[in-house]
Amino acid sequence: MEKDIHSHHISQQFNAELDDAKTRMLEMGGLVEKQVRDAISAFMNLDSGLAEEVARRDNKVNNLEVEIDEECTLILARRQPAASDLRLVLAISKTLNDLERMGDEASKIAKHSIALANEGGVSRSYLEIRHIGDHVGSMVRDALDAFARFDSPLALRVAQEDKAVDTEYGTAMRSLVTYMIEDPRSIGSILNIMWSLRSLERIGDHARNIAEHVIYLVEGKDVRHAALEEMEAEVKG
Amino acid sequence: MEKDIHSHHISQQFNAELDDAKTRMLEMGGLVEKQVRDAISAFMNLDSGLAEEVARRDNKVNNLEVEIDEECTLILARRQPAASDLRLVLAISKTLNDLERMGDEASKIAKHSIALANEGGVSRSYLEIRHIGDHVGSMVRDALDAFARFDSPLALRVAQEDKAVDTEYGTAMRSLVTYMIEDPRSIGSILNIMWSLRSLERIGDHARNIAEHVIYLVEGKDVRHAALEEMEAEVKG
Repeated sequence: MEKDIHSHHISQQFNAELDDAKTRMLEMGGLVEKQVRDAISAFMNLDSGLAEEVARRDNKVNNLEVEIDEECTLILARRQPAASDLRLVLAISKTLNDLERMGDEASKIAKHSIALANEGGVSRSYLEIRHIGDHVGSMVRDALDAFARFDSPLALRVAQEDKAVDTEYGTAMRSLVTYMIEDPRSIGSILNIMWSLRSLERIGDHARNIAEHVIYLVEGKDVRHAALEEMEAEVKG
Repeated sequence: MEKDIHSHHISQQFNAELDDAKTRMLEMGGLVEKQVRDAISAFMNLDSGLAEEVARRDNKVNNLEVEIDEECTLILARRQPAASDLRLVLAISKTLNDLERMGDEASKIAKHSIALANEGGVSRSYLEIRHIGDHVGSMVRDALDAFARFDSPLALRVAQEDKAVDTEYGTAMRSLVTYMIEDPRSIGSILNIMWSLRSLERIGDHARNIAEHVIYLVEGKDVRHAALEEMEAEVKG
């Protein structure tokens, strides 16, 4: 698969530039993965020190987006890639945007964990954060692996997982509303859990977006907003 | 300004293609503006019919994103634009993405208004929705006007407004939390207002993103994640 996609290079130098942009984007992906993981840990342990680190590191994620996207623009300007090379540059650029937004959401989770810690936590467990967080974390990892290996079947599985996360999210929210009604003094605290779950759900959406970029890149077909069945047809067809 | 930006065209045909992509993007922007406006009306009047229309039309927004983005990719592939033409194509493509996400948020507001109507509304007013909605609505219009006219000072004002919206949003949320605590039976209904405010705040963020794309396009400088002061220096410098 990788050989096919890389069959149009006009020069070794161009090849090296494309590889560099992809590698740096995947490194940024690794940093964002860590941000998500650390934000979830900070939340589960009400560890405000770790949460502040996550919030601080968001700057680094933002800078990487701008730097690597500039690299992509330079490749477009100088090398004027066509066909699959063009798709690769565009898919990298779009993925950068999704990674940056995942980083924002991780930073929001960190801030909500600080707010929750300041309120002294809540007597109820935060197990939904752990559960959905683990699920979303593995979607992020798989989406990046799918990009690294140009693996569209894996990308399709990420898109399928997103549906499961949405269902888990709905269930968790309903149980939190019930808890709020039973114990109105906990409203402020529970809202921090709700906002954080929302952020996790958004991170899942961005992982799905990355998966769609991978399918576009490998299959040459834009599957944004396509139903899962259409995506399956593209990947298997 | 417009003349400068358009000074590198290699052909009339290329010129026409670029103009067409820009025009279609701005038309999509007009549709998204309407979606936001209708979603706010549906909410204020608990008009589920209108809300359902908004939710249905979101498909059209999604399709436009994919179609116009494909047009951009074709321009990149065939015309291999450089300098300001390249920036224009990339700015259009990034703006499409922000518009599509605004459309998603409008559709979420519509769904929350249906949920609120089904619960019979709440005795409290939804004035925050109207107030912040009007503010955000004018940011969206200004961001699109700034793009249409390559007007970076107007784009800068949009970015400045986003800060004001964030402050209004914080105040509104605190007052809603207080209301919930005083009247726990309203929790479910108030959450629909909160989620909708959150969507409006996100729409403001996307308007700011579009403003940043305009500054990038006109000034040649990527100001994403820059502080307002840095943006001011770029636009005025």
